[in-house]
Amino acid sequence: MIRILVTGGTFDKEYNELAGTLFFKDTHLPEMLRLGRSRLEVTVRTLMMIDSLEMTDADRALIIEQCRRSEETQIVITHGTDTMVETARALAAALAGDGKTIVLTGAMVPYAFGSSDGLFNLGSALSFVQVLPPGVYLAMNGRCFTADRVRKNRESGFFEER
Amino acid sequence: MIRILVTGGTFDKEYNELAGTLFFKDTHLPEMLRLGRSRLEVTVRTLMMIDSLEMTDADRALIIEQCRRSEETQIVITHGTDTMVETARALAAALAGDGKTIVLTGAMVPYAFGSSDGLFNLGSALSFVQVLPPGVYLAMNGRCFTADRVRKNRESGFFEER
Amino acid sequence: MIRILVTGGTFDKEYNELAGTLFFKDTHLPEMLRLGRSRLEVTVRTLMMIDSLEMTDADRALIIEQCRRSEETQIVITHGTDTMVETARALAAALAGDGKTIVLTGAMVPYAFGSSDGLFNLGSALSFVQVLPPGVYLAMNGRCFTADRVRKNRESGFFEER
Amino acid sequence: MIRILVTGGTFDKEYNELAGTLFFKDTHLPEMLRLGRSRLEVTVRTLMMIDSLEMTDADRALIIEQCRRSEETQIVITHGTDTMVETARALAAALAGDGKTIVLTGAMVPYAFGSSDGLFNLGSALSFVQVLPPGVYLAMNGRCFTADRVRKNRESGFFEER
Repeated sequence: MIRILVTGGTFDKEYNELAGTLFFKDTHLPEMLRLGRSRLEVTVRTLMMIDSLEMTDADRALIIEQCRRSEETQIVITHGTDTMVETARALAAALAGDGKTIVLTGAMVPYAFGSSDGLFNLGSALSFVQVLPPGVYLAMNGRCFTADRVRKNRESGFFEER
Repeated sequence: MIRILVTGGTFDKEYNELAGTLFFKDTHLPEMLRLGRSRLEVTVRTLMMIDSLEMTDADRALIIEQCRRSEETQIVITHGTDTMVETARALAAALAGDGKTIVLTGAMVPYAFGSSDGLFNLGSALSFVQVLPPGVYLAMNGRCFTADRVRKNRESGFFEER
Repeated sequence: MIRILVTGGTFDKEYNELAGTLFFKDTHLPEMLRLGRSRLEVTVRTLMMIDSLEMTDADRALIIEQCRRSEETQIVITHGTDTMVETARALAAALAGDGKTIVLTGAMVPYAFGSSDGLFNLGSALSFVQVLPPGVYLAMNGRCFTADRVRKNRESGFFEER
Repeated sequence: MIRILVTGGTFDKEYNELAGTLFFKDTHLPEMLRLGRSRLEVTVRTLMMIDSLEMTDADRALIIEQCRRSEETQIVITHGTDTMVETARALAAALAGDGKTIVLTGAMVPYAFGSSDGLFNLGSALSFVQVLPPGVYLAMNGRCFTADRVRKNRESGFFEER
């Protein structure tokens, strides 16, 4: 059984056709799992629906608490890419020795757009979480990084080792 | 470095708008890697472009030979789902002890269709291949199966342990 | 008020992921009208769901009868492209002087595929039907043809004057 | 021959995956015509690429001038929906008696998104422009309005008669 925690991010942004702006409504996770014909046993829980630039320490404390209390030891977190690294580090610091495998992932383009990387990343994160040893990881660009050795390159938009 | 071997399958079927039928043209792999913002180092090689129901022993011998001679030890094979299990078993029998991690994947719906599981499966296969120990695996439905313990349920279309 | 008669055709073909074949289930018309943000008053009626190569004289008689009895004088018919011209001529012969504007349209690629011309053609047919004088027309490729002066070019897939 | 003048609007907005914002790059018109399998003879000219809320009197004067000097008497203008009515009225006032049929259209959702009404609206506008008498019109929601009898309902996002 895998626990999926939803925090928002580009993944779940939608287009408000009256205002012409991007906004959050519901998560697309269940639809994406259906599209991927996933047969994994998962529980999906939406913790928040925010842009990761607006994520506060209190929000991160909530995510940490949810991971700590999770009965499932395999956890995927969908998260905005801008501060995904910060959240990963906070999780790694708080949950060292907790015995859980936690994989954060996100998307550069909203799933609701035709050209999103979201489905690829979700398939990737759900796979890594099943086989990696306990620890906190990022799954982006087909690759997997440990929380302490990754940064987002803001010029290219790609994640890379540091 | 990961080697990707393309053999066709539903993954790469397209719609012929003059004949109203499905057919094979070029593989969508490079486009899918671009869409997934993949930053993995991969070499893509098209071995054949066929429906897996038409795959012969000679075709399987070719796939085995390509895997054996591959310098990369991580190999993903895109394959039709109907005989994916047979090819996986042939690979497992022929390459035991070869030290390579081989992951077969495919799709239930062509990538060219809006509702394909292909991108999800590709993200999944490319992730499993990076972390699993040597052996032959199937990555479908978000799950990973070893070659000797999987079958396709033809009623549901899902892969399951046997 | 516009009447929309559905007869099937490529427009409404779907992909059967178990059999790997194309088939008919329900019409996509209501979804397409929603996607187009259509505010036209329409009634949608499915007469049949068939490939137009399989359309019989009895089927055409049914379509003619439905047009004759329609209270709406503006009628759009979705139809396979292979015999769209034949049905248009049968309608023109049977309904001369009936005072109705009938526009047939279809698609070269199923709507369920990402690259379909269906939405474009539907927008086109619904527009032509509102402003053209009584008669039987084909709306394809952005153009409008009268029933007696059109043929499908089977090499190119385009409709043209003859 | 139909002239298509591009001014931007939601139609042509794209997602900037580095900034997470919407922006203009190139027009999608040629791609949309290809998708619609259009066989109309058209010339596409990009006049500006702006949000219609930012359209100035000078911009409108340019559009009017381009319509006046157009050799084609059938003109489609793609335009943001927020001030489409204002531009239509300016055109109607300036070009009365000019003998041209001008149809403005746009989209509520960017074409680059999966759920855009753009292709439907383009099929509609290109059809209306071929058959309507000289004048200035709006084609939205499957309907056609004359410039002096239309308003955008900002609550619903739909265009309606006034």
